[in-house]
Amino acid sequence: MAAALRLGIAGLGTVGVGVVRIIRRQAEMLSMRTGRDIVISAVSARDASKDRGVPLGDYAWESDPVALAQRDDVDVFVELMGGSDGAAKDATEAALAAGKDVVTANKALLALHGTALAEAAEAAGRVIRFEAAVAGGIPVIKSLTEGLAGNEITRVMGVMNGTCNYILTRMENAGLPYDTVFQEAADLGYLEADPTLDVGGIDAAHKLALLSAIAFGTKPNFDGIAIEGIERVSIDDIRQAADMGYRIKLLGVAQQSARGLEQSMQPCLVPASSPLGQLEGGTNMVVIEGDAVDQIVLRGPGAGEGPTASAVMGDICDLARGLHIPTFGQPAATLKAAPAATAALPAPYYLRLTLADKPGALAKLASALGQAGVSINRMRQYAHDASEAPVLIVTHKCTRDALDSALAALAASDVVLSQPVALRIEDL
Amino acid sequence: MAAALRLGIAGLGTVGVGVVRIIRRQAEMLSMRTGRDIVISAVSARDASKDRGVPLGDYAWESDPVALAQRDDVDVFVELMGGSDGAAKDATEAALAAGKDVVTANKALLALHGTALAEAAEAAGRVIRFEAAVAGGIPVIKSLTEGLAGNEITRVMGVMNGTCNYILTRMENAGLPYDTVFQEAADLGYLEADPTLDVGGIDAAHKLALLSAIAFGTKPNFDGIAIEGIERVSIDDIRQAADMGYRIKLLGVAQQSARGLEQSMQPCLVPASSPLGQLEGGTNMVVIEGDAVDQIVLRGPGAGEGPTASAVMGDICDLARGLHIPTFGQPAATLKAAPAATAALPAPYYLRLTLADKPGALAKLASALGQAGVSINRMRQYAHDASEAPVLIVTHKCTRDALDSALAALAASDVVLSQPVALRIEDL
Repeated sequence: MAAALRLGIAGLGTVGVGVVRIIRRQAEMLSMRTGRDIVISAVSARDASKDRGVPLGDYAWESDPVALAQRDDVDVFVELMGGSDGAAKDATEAALAAGKDVVTANKALLALHGTALAEAAEAAGRVIRFEAAVAGGIPVIKSLTEGLAGNEITRVMGVMNGTCNYILTRMENAGLPYDTVFQEAADLGYLEADPTLDVGGIDAAHKLALLSAIAFGTKPNFDGIAIEGIERVSIDDIRQAADMGYRIKLLGVAQQSARGLEQSMQPCLVPASSPLGQLEGGTNMVVIEGDAVDQIVLRGPGAGEGPTASAVMGDICDLARGLHIPTFGQPAATLKAAPAATAALPAPYYLRLTLADKPGALAKLASALGQAGVSINRMRQYAHDASEAPVLIVTHKCTRDALDSALAALAASDVVLSQPVALRIEDL
Repeated sequence: MAAALRLGIAGLGTVGVGVVRIIRRQAEMLSMRTGRDIVISAVSARDASKDRGVPLGDYAWESDPVALAQRDDVDVFVELMGGSDGAAKDATEAALAAGKDVVTANKALLALHGTALAEAAEAAGRVIRFEAAVAGGIPVIKSLTEGLAGNEITRVMGVMNGTCNYILTRMENAGLPYDTVFQEAADLGYLEADPTLDVGGIDAAHKLALLSAIAFGTKPNFDGIAIEGIERVSIDDIRQAADMGYRIKLLGVAQQSARGLEQSMQPCLVPASSPLGQLEGGTNMVVIEGDAVDQIVLRGPGAGEGPTASAVMGDICDLARGLHIPTFGQPAATLKAAPAATAALPAPYYLRLTLADKPGALAKLASALGQAGVSINRMRQYAHDASEAPVLIVTHKCTRDALDSALAALAASDVVLSQPVALRIEDL
């Protein structure tokens, strides 16, 4: 049997403890599957005295993760601290410089510094693996980079923040407004310390930046993602969407257009009967479309100790088996720049507006849309009180530019009473 | 750049032509992703003169696949001929003996001869890869063997024959009987030359044998699978199941019980709202449950040129990248025997019986079930004519043995008029 693969694990939160548990419980199985023993040499965390419910006495303790990353008895540095900068970045760079492979669950680190880190890994002849950084336990990085390596990828979509999906499905199922369900989620401990990371779409956008990079061979470009959170999604919109056969999801979409790579993380309408539309609660889903495979849908838990540790272990087993693939699936030098592209690809849109209830208002609305080249597929005006008329529109496919120009014209008129809601409809 | 990876492709049907097309169209992309050129040295098929719509003049032609497998300018033998014995087996053995890796889409070959072939591969220091043999374009072998390598797998389930799923969903959606829809499928060219392979569950069971082996570290044991086709599924059962919130699927299930590995490929009831229940038409789905990851669901096209070629290319790219994993995920010598286990794990069952309409019939039915230890969860008796009474029962969890003993007692009585329908209900 080959020499043992020796790990240094930095970060003993939920995921780190989960990884330690699996390695202790399944040592024999792991060694049978990979042909090597997988052992922990050393660990590192903020508080050495805390009881984490798993025995750590067999492992050397390093208070400094950089020192852990550089230890001679560590082959693979397992970075489970989190944070896009600071200790996680320093220790990852130190590990690569010291000739260690890196396994990380850190989406923010790679979304913001992925290209430089991939270059550093290649210069050192090492790799960074990050299955756990995207969609928890779903082996989506592996499926895209390896299983679908024969495909030119045409579109990647995903619901990748379980908290947002919980909030949106709970609003729909219980008929509750956003603020109430947000508070429920907070009380249940579902939200990050900074909830904007969840409901503002930041966390999910970090994941999308990584998926885009491996799908399209581009440098991760988090700043190029059009991000909109779920804070403005109202129970009215959820109900109207449902009534027309749609559900609202915080959906990440990455696709190539003539103008470049379009990346967005926004609330979208998806057909209620589609796999994405049927996704309830905290589960994640990624849809991958390729020129040969057509469409693959992957679904599973997006967070939690077991699922995330499962993804980390998949990467560790790959390294134990000798798999060395460039960080983003191809050499860092061949990754193309991915400048921010505005949404050039036409899509149908859902619009909700409140019209002043006076003669000619509807004509002005229809005329503003028509002049911008936006044509109406379905329209409904609902029963209303004397002064204002709620109107719903589903457009035919149009560009976001055309839609925005129509909305600007309407804002300058006196017929639209409040800020219109405009959500893209994503066909599946 | 490393030396080119040189392929010999045996079999130029739909899948073989699809592989040739991808290699010609995406040469640059494949070489960027794998760090090597992937080239075709030679091909082999029955008819050298047939126009297959793709240029083959650049490749050497071998009329004998064994000769192809042994060529000096072939590193990887790509077996796309099909058939569990004969040329496919001979050529695969020859390729391994000559020191070639093998990529195959041949489920029957591996389901029946997998252990011996895996041993031959290891003796030669080579590997066999077979992503395309199970669930078409879905990277399920990779997900199980690699992505979920840190998991002890607890259950694997799958809808893996698109034709059967097409027939069953079409029966339900159009309200048509089995025979009519079977003929439709035949007219559409959906059926194998021997339709028993599809509707008899054989094809799907071949796939299940392979999934079981990699999930549970056992030797593929096709003969140990309890197989029942969809020929006896009636539109009545589909309607009654739907009425109770279920759908009927030809479902493969593999799980460990105290008596050993249980493998079945049978029509089952699944909750209509579950991912398996929502699966329409020819799409495939595999559900994997592991101790760490909980549940992963993979969905995609189960057949067709592009999806199957995509899976073959994933394996080829892995080999180009230097990935060498034992055929069934662990050394062949460590694979456990998997003797046929009867269904020992209790499950709820759906029963449909026709009772003689005479006093005491229902009492005899209830008594036979009760004496066998089968308790009733839900029961319905439908409106009926004078002589017979259709009765539906959903049992609480019971073993198949207990159920069969109750059914035997009923058959010996004079109250049940026709062969009862008994279908397992698989919870998700």
